[in-house]
Amino acid sequence: MTVARAVETLLPDYQIIYYGDLARTPYGSKSPEAIIDYSIENTQFLLEHGAKVIIIACNSAASVASDILRLNFTVPIFEVISPAVKRAVDTTLIGNIGIIGTRATIRSEIYDQKIKELAPQFHVFSQACPLLVPLVEEGWIDARETKMILRKYLSPLKQKQIDTLVLGCTHYPLLKDLIQHRMGKNRIRLIDSSIETALTLKKYLDENSDFGHTLQRDTINRYFVSDKTTAAVDTAAKIFGRPIELQKV
Amino acid sequence: MTVARAVETLLPDYQIIYYGDLARTPYGSKSPEAIIDYSIENTQFLLEHGAKVIIIACNSAASVASDILRLNFTVPIFEVISPAVKRAVDTTLIGNIGIIGTRATIRSEIYDQKIKELAPQFHVFSQACPLLVPLVEEGWIDARETKMILRKYLSPLKQKQIDTLVLGCTHYPLLKDLIQHRMGKNRIRLIDSSIETALTLKKYLDENSDFGHTLQRDTINRYFVSDKTTAAVDTAAKIFGRPIELQKV
Repeated sequence: MTVARAVETLLPDYQIIYYGDLARTPYGSKSPEAIIDYSIENTQFLLEHGAKVIIIACNSAASVASDILRLNFTVPIFEVISPAVKRAVDTTLIGNIGIIGTRATIRSEIYDQKIKELAPQFHVFSQACPLLVPLVEEGWIDARETKMILRKYLSPLKQKQIDTLVLGCTHYPLLKDLIQHRMGKNRIRLIDSSIETALTLKKYLDENSDFGHTLQRDTINRYFVSDKTTAAVDTAAKIFGRPIELQKV
Repeated sequence: MTVARAVETLLPDYQIIYYGDLARTPYGSKSPEAIIDYSIENTQFLLEHGAKVIIIACNSAASVASDILRLNFTVPIFEVISPAVKRAVDTTLIGNIGIIGTRATIRSEIYDQKIKELAPQFHVFSQACPLLVPLVEEGWIDARETKMILRKYLSPLKQKQIDTLVLGCTHYPLLKDLIQHRMGKNRIRLIDSSIETALTLKKYLDENSDFGHTLQRDTINRYFVSDKTTAAVDTAAKIFGRPIELQKV
């Protein structure tokens, strides 16, 4: 949803077809095999509902399923990792980059690989933060317990001389202020993968205007979910700043 | 798994066929419709693999799907709520019972209903504790953050004059010591739904020995899961006190 929100802000004319697999979230604690199966199903659903461009708007799915989706589908496929990696590499002054994400994302070592491809001499420091997703989904954005758990997760990264930290999970932008405060406002630049992904898509559409013109415009956005809970409705309203009509399919 | 462990301890001669739907957990934060669909699928799976008795070993599933499963299937169906309710009603001296559980379980008000059926004059005080499942699944059993979150959840219940507290989620027995300590060792009796369910099944099989004799015995127990992660393997080993061979299906 944070990615959809960023796309809506940067590309307001294009139709968004969103699918949130809430019946099977969180992906971050599941096996690569399960995440790959679900990602293929979800992509098929979006294509059947008219999508012409796919964004894998989940770091856990992007980290294990991007290559397989690109082999299986011919539409342009964007994901949330490469844009954040590029921005992090462009941002760091000292070549020390931190990554926080779910267990699935951190275990995949995808950020390490992609950063090393662009800048082999850089150092990457990763930290899995598996409880942040449930805390965000509970709405405990400002809770003292969330601050304590964040302190515990971020403390090993604070020891390292990093100047750039990638929010490697699309839930984390909701904790951006807390994370920035904890890491030091002037010391660390945070990279928000949701915003970087929307910027990358915008650049692609600007550079490929023939393709861009074939896309649906000025049509109502659709927000499909595989399960609809009060917590999801509340979180959507918080992210978008207005009520969002989630349609259970 | 805590229920399977209790059944194994009390009824060691019978074959257990376990199915953990780890690909779609946690159920406690999902909608009743999703939980019902999954419970029907899971029951079919167990029957196809030879089960002759079903235990709905999850309070969230039991709270919304028990009646529908009993309508759809003819085998004896046990669940984790009624045995705990019966024991709580028998245990309380002052008629004030506390319930902790997931959001789905507490919202269903199933404990309130079932307690009122047995003892209309009793008072029930409920508290949803949605973060306890992810904390347990992370293995943060003794973490300071878990203690803080438990204190926050239990503090409203401590205000009430309860003398009995039902652990209304099969994850919570792993936090039993912390909960007992927090609520006061001599003030509050904890009811463990896993143990009560196994006791109820044992009583049923003792009283229906003709049926009991038709069941498979002395056969190796089967532990099927819909997703296999390191965390699940570790939790299984912790609950059973030995490695458990989880078979991904």
